[in-house]
Amino acid sequence: MANPAADELDRLIHERIRLGIVAALAANDALTFAELRDVLKTTDGNLSVHARKLEEAGYIRVTKGFEDRKPRTEYRLTPKGRRALEQYLQQMEGILSAARDALERA
Amino acid sequence: MANPAADELDRLIHERIRLGIVAALAANDALTFAELRDVLKTTDGNLSVHARKLEEAGYIRVTKGFEDRKPRTEYRLTPKGRRALEQYLQQMEGILSAARDALERA
Repeated sequence: MANPAADELDRLIHERIRLGIVAALAANDALTFAELRDVLKTTDGNLSVHARKLEEAGYIRVTKGFEDRKPRTEYRLTPKGRRALEQYLQQMEGILSAARDALERA
Repeated sequence: MANPAADELDRLIHERIRLGIVAALAANDALTFAELRDVLKTTDGNLSVHARKLEEAGYIRVTKGFEDRKPRTEYRLTPKGRRALEQYLQQMEGILSAARDALERA
């Protein structure tokens, strides 16, 4: 029986918004709060909650500063976050590829 | 800026246990409650809750019967569930492939 191994997935990264954050930060050196919120089409509240969880896990790093006297919060992926994303990709690619094979056999 | 499009993912399938159920049923014509629980390494309670959500969405079909006078519950993927999994795979393959490209460029 095929084991989808979904029980091994990193729950921290698998959640939709957090996967979006981590994937966007893998593709961009740094993103501001507003940029992340817009690219993920989510709310300030949702982004705050999920970004905090990723920050607490050490997957992303937050820099608060000022630009033209306006506050500017920037997010970056950490090396630990990069490794976690790499592992998640491997697991998820395995699950998807098994599901894809199953659909095509049917 | 790369758009991970994670906001478009089918939430019903993306949840870990439900993804496991749907993937396992794509790979097997029918599975009993106990088989699904064991392959997903989850609890009776968890499996019940998530299987019910998939059933309510019309993604899986449940057959209750008897075998050797013992109750036997079987789960199958419906055509609607198969189409939903197909669409989820396409979206998720896009997200993973963009994230993979980003990691390899870095």
